[in-house]
Amino acid sequence: MARGKLNVEELLAAKGELTRTRILDEAVRIASRDGLEGLSIGTLATALELSKSGLFAHFGSREALQVAVLEHAGARFHARACELADAPQGPERLRALLRISMDWIDDPELPGGCPIAGACIEFDDREGPVRERLLEMQEASRRRTVELFAAFAAPGQDLEQLAFEFRALTMAYHHASRVLRDPRARAWAQQALEALLVRASAA
Amino acid sequence: MARGKLNVEELLAAKGELTRTRILDEAVRIASRDGLEGLSIGTLATALELSKSGLFAHFGSREALQVAVLEHAGARFHARACELADAPQGPERLRALLRISMDWIDDPELPGGCPIAGACIEFDDREGPVRERLLEMQEASRRRTVELFAAFAAPGQDLEQLAFEFRALTMAYHHASRVLRDPRARAWAQQALEALLVRASAA
Repeated sequence: MARGKLNVEELLAAKGELTRTRILDEAVRIASRDGLEGLSIGTLATALELSKSGLFAHFGSREALQVAVLEHAGARFHARACELADAPQGPERLRALLRISMDWIDDPELPGGCPIAGACIEFDDREGPVRERLLEMQEASRRRTVELFAAFAAPGQDLEQLAFEFRALTMAYHHASRVLRDPRARAWAQQALEALLVRASAA
Repeated sequence: MARGKLNVEELLAAKGELTRTRILDEAVRIASRDGLEGLSIGTLATALELSKSGLFAHFGSREALQVAVLEHAGARFHARACELADAPQGPERLRALLRISMDWIDDPELPGGCPIAGACIEFDDREGPVRERLLEMQEASRRRTVELFAAFAAPGQDLEQLAFEFRALTMAYHHASRVLRDPRARAWAQQALEALLVRASAA
């Protein structure tokens, strides 16, 4: 077989991956609008015109589907967050992270806003694998923010405190942009970040 | 009829009010856990061991029930917020408002956190009377926060910006306390407020 061509197994695997991506893109859209709890293998099958049994074969259970949707949304966000590396280390990376987060929150592909933010409200009181995965993702995001502040914060600054406040302003942006639809939302979040950056740099 | 006693009509009205309060307390509890969209006249009837037709008579529609639940939750929060008047005007009132908000968010009567915060995620993309009422309530809360800052902020301070950041820290508290269950949540929110109060007072 010529180099550069896929064999049958590889072709089938690539097709499966494509199908999985297409399924999960649609599932993320539904979860954005109706929440993870509003997502079932049945509604997803209808939206995609696929058989329910085929989707069960992909995911095995509704919980596994919910976890896969969280991970897919997280992977899509992280693909955008790669841009961070283009910004110089220091405050500029937090400005970039805020901009990327706001663009993500406003993405028209997410009709009801970030599905991870929605899942936080749904799974605060529901134990199990979905909540566990959600907490791991939130923890990874917290660690990343702490590292971004650590790169330039003055000695003695409480990095956990700064990360808490960074998350605060992205949450308030979600609320002001998606719920209130207030055109001042972006300016408010940016102004709040500038004040936080001044504090982080202060000895 | 002796003064101080209720006549039959008054007694019946008082009983109706009591029933309504009991119904709405349970509905707020369900909405806290399952969201407003997880609340139906059927689930509520089951939880209260009342007839569905009786509940329909009380509310008329699911949407009217959802609006009533929002208003009941808001009224319960406002009953607590009356304490604000005991604090001296100025920063102390914002400290009191934060404390009252955190106690509300942690209330064990609300198994899944504040149902109004949950409704914000559910109704960001759903037009109609529930969203309209929610926006009115959010607007009233924004106005109250602006007034509390106006009482002591330095001239030229952007009160809308300060109110945005106050909401940000209550939202991040909800997340850190309810989702992450982090024991540092309260200290983080209080520290964030102190920094905001310093900025508000700075000329």
